[in-house]
Amino acid sequence: MGNETAKLSILRVTEQLKSEVEDIVVREFPLTIVLNDHELVTLLCSPTSLEYLAVGFLLSEGLIESKDDIKAILVDDQRGVARIETEKAVDVSLGRVLTSGGGRVVASSSVHKVSAAPQTRLSASRVFSLMDDFVQRSKVFKATGGVHSAALCDTNGILVFGEDIGRHNAIDKIFGECLLKDIATDNRLIITSGRVSSEILLKVAKRNIPILISKSAPTDLGVKLANDLGVTLVGFVRGKRMNVYTNSWRVAQ
Amino acid sequence: MGNETAKLSILRVTEQLKSEVEDIVVREFPLTIVLNDHELVTLLCSPTSLEYLAVGFLLSEGLIESKDDIKAILVDDQRGVARIETEKAVDVSLGRVLTSGGGRVVASSSVHKVSAAPQTRLSASRVFSLMDDFVQRSKVFKATGGVHSAALCDTNGILVFGEDIGRHNAIDKIFGECLLKDIATDNRLIITSGRVSSEILLKVAKRNIPILISKSAPTDLGVKLANDLGVTLVGFVRGKRMNVYTNSWRVAQ
Repeated sequence: MGNETAKLSILRVTEQLKSEVEDIVVREFPLTIVLNDHELVTLLCSPTSLEYLAVGFLLSEGLIESKDDIKAILVDDQRGVARIETEKAVDVSLGRVLTSGGGRVVASSSVHKVSAAPQTRLSASRVFSLMDDFVQRSKVFKATGGVHSAALCDTNGILVFGEDIGRHNAIDKIFGECLLKDIATDNRLIITSGRVSSEILLKVAKRNIPILISKSAPTDLGVKLANDLGVTLVGFVRGKRMNVYTNSWRVAQ
Repeated sequence: MGNETAKLSILRVTEQLKSEVEDIVVREFPLTIVLNDHELVTLLCSPTSLEYLAVGFLLSEGLIESKDDIKAILVDDQRGVARIETEKAVDVSLGRVLTSGGGRVVASSSVHKVSAAPQTRLSASRVFSLMDDFVQRSKVFKATGGVHSAALCDTNGILVFGEDIGRHNAIDKIFGECLLKDIATDNRLIITSGRVSSEILLKVAKRNIPILISKSAPTDLGVKLANDLGVTLVGFVRGKRMNVYTNSWRVAQ
C-alpha cells in the first residue's frame, strides 16, 4: 500500500477492554495544481498517482481537452505541487471552480448527451461480478475504511483502477491515466464507491461514458441529469441486488 | 422528512427478478451565499435549515464571529439564494475558499489549541450510547443512504442535530443554529457520520470543542491536528467498539 497510509498507535476501546494497538490510517496530502504559472487549486488527496490526478482534474474542469494540449508536467511530490504547461494559453476563468460541501458546481448546459454505441449494455449478473472484483481491489479501503475507489471497465472487466480520499479525485485519477496512456473511455463504464451527486454524473457524462455504477446512493439531481444526458445510472449494488435509476434498457437481464 | 427527499420510480434488479418500484432519493439543492452583495460561493446541499447553513458556513470560514455581526438574513428557498448583511464591512478575501476533492483548504496556523474545562470527559459506554441515539435520529439516512449527519452533544445527550448531503454542511448547520439560538458549543462534543479530514478537525477545533466522535475513519492529517490542538478524536464507533486516536484521557472507562 506504500505511502497512501500511515501507521500510528491508538487506543482500542471496548466495554471490557482498553488496549494500545498499532493502527493504519489513510494519508491526506495537499496537492497544489499550477497551470501555466497560475496557481489554480489545492486538492486534498491521497499521495499517489499525482500526475494522473492533476491531468484528470484539468480535463474534468474543461481546461485541457487532449494529451496534445499538454506541453510539460512536473510533479514535486515533496512540496506537493504539480506544474502543468499547455501548448496554448488557457483562460483559467473557464474552469469556474466553486466549492460545495463536497465538490464543485459545474454548469450542466455545456455537457452533451452521451452518444454511446447501442451495443454498450450488460447483464445484471455482469454488474454484480464487476462490483465484486471492484470491492476486492480496494486494499487501502480494507485497511483503513477511509478511501474511495473508482474504476474504468468494459463489460469483460476492470481496465483502470484508482483510489483517493476524495470521490472526485478517484475518478479524476482514472481519467488522467486514460488521457496520458491513450486508453479510450467512451462506450465504457465507470464504477464508483461513492455517492452520485450532479457533479459526479456530469464528470462522467463529459467523457461520453454511458453507464455509471455506484455502490452507494444517488441524489435526485444526479438521477435527473442521468436521465437528461442518456446515462444508465445504477446504484446500491450490494451482493446480488441493485437499483437501476435511469435508462435501464442497457442493463439486460 | 419533508423536502430533503424525492420519490421516483426505479427498476430494482436481483438475479431472479426485475421489478419497477417507488424509491426515495435524497435531494440536492444549490444554495448561493451572498455576503453584503458579494456572491461568495454556491453550496450543493440538502434543502433544509438553509439559514443555519449559510450562517454556519460564514462562521466556519471566519467571515463572521458572533450573532451581533449579522444585520440581516434573507433566504430565498425558491431561487436558492441566502443573502446576509453584516454590521461592518467584511474582507471576503479573508475567507480563502479553495476547493479540494471534498472540501476546503484552511490555514491551520490561525486555529488555537482548544481550552476546554478538564472535567469535559465521558466514559466509553457513554460514547456508545450517544452514537446509538445519533444513528437512530437519522431518518433521511435510513430512507436514502445518501446523507451525512452531525450533532452537538453534552455528556447527557444530543442537543442539536443536523443532516445534509455534505459532511461539511451537516456540521455547519449545527454551528449556524447554535449561533442564532445562543447555544454554547465550547466544552461540548460533536458527533459526525463522516470521515474526519484535516478540514473537519479544524472546523470543530475553531469552535473550541474538545471531543470529536466519528462513525468513520480519520485521515493522518486529521489525527495530527487533533493531537496538536488538544482535541480528543474518536473514530469507528460501531456497536461496542471504538478507536481513540488522540488525547484518550478524556474518555475514561
